[in-house]
Parts: sequence; C-alpha cells; structure tokens
Amino acid sequence: MSTIKVTTRKKSEFIDITADVGRALKQMGATDGFCLVFVPHTTAAVTINESADPDVAADILAALERIVPREAGYRHREGNAAAHIKATLVGASLWVAVEDGKPVLGTWQGIFFCEFDGPRSRQVHVRFVGDNG
Amino acid sequence: MSTIKVTTRKKSEFIDITADVGRALKQMGATDGFCLVFVPHTTAAVTINESADPDVAADILAALERIVPREAGYRHREGNAAAHIKATLVGASLWVAVEDGKPVLGTWQGIFFCEFDGPRSRQVHVRFVGDNG
Amino acid sequence: MSTIKVTTRKKSEFIDITADVGRALKQMGATDGFCLVFVPHTTAAVTINESADPDVAADILAALERIVPREAGYRHREGNAAAHIKATLVGASLWVAVEDGKPVLGTWQGIFFCEFDGPRSRQVHVRFVGDNG
Repeated sequence: MSTIKVTTRKKSEFIDITADVGRALKQMGATDGFCLVFVPHTTAAVTINESADPDVAADILAALERIVPREAGYRHREGNAAAHIKATLVGASLWVAVEDGKPVLGTWQGIFFCEFDGPRSRQVHVRFVGDNG
Repeated sequence: MSTIKVTTRKKSEFIDITADVGRALKQMGATDGFCLVFVPHTTAAVTINESADPDVAADILAALERIVPREAGYRHREGNAAAHIKATLVGASLWVAVEDGKPVLGTWQGIFFCEFDGPRSRQVHVRFVGDNG
Repeated sequence: MSTIKVTTRKKSEFIDITADVGRALKQMGATDGFCLVFVPHTTAAVTINESADPDVAADILAALERIVPREAGYRHREGNAAAHIKATLVGASLWVAVEDGKPVLGTWQGIFFCEFDGPRSRQVHVRFVGDNG
C-alpha cells in the first residue's frame, strides 16, 4: 500500500491526484493489474471526471452544494452533516486498471480527491493487485 | 462467498454491517486481500460513512428523501421508484481492503446496508480475493 | 480486455448492457472471478438497477434531470456541465462477480450504460480477473 497525503485549503475542493496515483504505482513497482484508490475519511470522497477544464470540478462542487445545503436542520452536531451526505453520494473509493505501471483512463479523465469539510490534512490509500515488474 | 442476511424494519434505514462483514471474512478464512460487498437488490444499496454517531445515517437518509421525493409522478407502477433512484445514487457495491482477516477502514468509517424500500428480508454477498490463512 | 461499443441515440439514455458484458466475458474465456465494467468518458456512467421494467430507467433519468438541471449558470463552456455532474453522482465503473463465465446479478438487476450527453459513440471497457476456462 502507498499513502498519498493531500492538504486541502478550502471547505469544498477537488484536487487532481492522477499524477500522485501514478507515482504511488511506480513506488509499489506495479506493472499490470488494478489499483484501488480508497479514502479513509467520512467527509471526503474520490471521483473520476474531466481534468482538462477546472470549471468542470467547480460546477460539480457548486451542484453538490445546491443538492446538499450546508444547513438544513441536520441532527449531527459537528456542523458537517452536508459533507457526510456528499461523501455517500460520490463514494469513498474507485478502481482503475493499470497497464505498464500507469492508470488506464479515458482521454479527458482524471482522478479527483473530493474535500467536503476542509481545510484538512487528508490521506488516500492506493493499493495494487496484479503483476509487479 | 458468504451471504449476510439483513432484516430491515423501516421503509428507509441504514444498518451497520461492519461486524457482519468481519464475521463473513473470518468464516471464509480470509487473511489479506480485498473484499467485495455486493447488494443483489435494486431498491437497496451499500455505503461507507461514519459509524460513531447514528445521527449521520439519519441525516443522510433525510437528505436522500429530500433529493428524491417518494412521490413525483413516477412511471414505475410499484410505488418504489424513489428507492430505485436512491439505489443508483448510492451504489450496489463497494470494495474494502482486508488485512489480518479484518476490513481496513478509517477511524470513523463503518459499512452500511442502505434500505430504501423496507421492511424486507435482504441479502448482502461478501466475496474475498487474496490469501487465505 | 474487451471493449463494448455503445451507440446512443438520445441526450440522456440508459442502455442495458448486461448481455454485452456476458458476451465480453465469454470472448475473454472468463470462468470464475470478477469483472470491472469501466466507462472511459466523463459525461456518461454505469449503474446496476432493475432491468425488468424500463420505466425504472426512465424514472432515474427524470430524477437526475430534476436533481441536476441542464442549465444552472454553469462555468464549463461546452454546455454539458450537467452531464459531468451526473457522471460523478452515478460513477464511472462497477464490479460484478463472475461464475461459470456469467455475471452474478440479483433477480431484477441489470447493468446499464448511462448516457448523459448523447447522442454519441461510446465505449465500455470490460476487464476480468480470475480463472480462465
């Protein structure tokens, strides 16, 4: 396993970790197989979406804010219920195929760490299953 | 494969199945690898979120109810269209890494079976890939 | 790997690809294991839901349209921000167990390619890990 450290700077933020996942795979000596990108937090998530235009991430964040308002009479007392809800809507993990040590993604795809309750120091666990070079 | 039986008691309900997944792994003799937690139903789901404060699950359920109203002129005649929609938003399966026979989760994370059209008798399939002790 | 080609005909559409995934597994000689169904696009997704009544898919599409309006002052200039948002809500990939060369699904479950920005020519990558017959 390799752990990516992510330092977030805003309440809600998408951070492109595609290159970090690539580095983690290299560090693990991964060649061909699959990698699990797992977020061990409950107010953050991970998703695949367009990496070319940062406006896409901004639009997704704004949409999530509309879908899950920050305040809505939540019962959870820590003030971050909306972040927990977003985490379940987006998901805590994803898998990507690995070929020649690199994550196999579509032309426009990138892997994003999704912060919903920042700023914080976060971790992303990358695990590989398959052949090591 | 090991099947967890879940008896739900409400229309919408989160049930913490973390311990059940741990027991399923033990029963399968799993040591190190990955486990797939799969819900074979179309009006239920599975998610990872905070297990310490039950208010978090209550807030997620209430938010899903607001996002997907129970009645909204749906075409599906069985009266549970909202449950199908929630199932797609949350997802039918998830993977968790396994170390020393135990699911590897973050400090606050638990695995929840999500009932959206209960009460019912439900199943959750747990499959393991990796080393057996 | 096997690639399924999907030709979509509408702006938003669910296409049942369960049989295509079965054919891809057969073509790869898969017997028992797991298969990853991966969409390499950022305005499409893949989900498991009811395949018996097509009204369920129609209701999910209509609900997503309500949750994520096509126009909402988005910053992304290509006019398909809503499709990107839906892609993150539903997800780009899923895993299904494989037994005797067939995807293991619940009675009512089918695998759906979700088009959110069609019509287009799309691809779905099917990868298998496990035993080959």
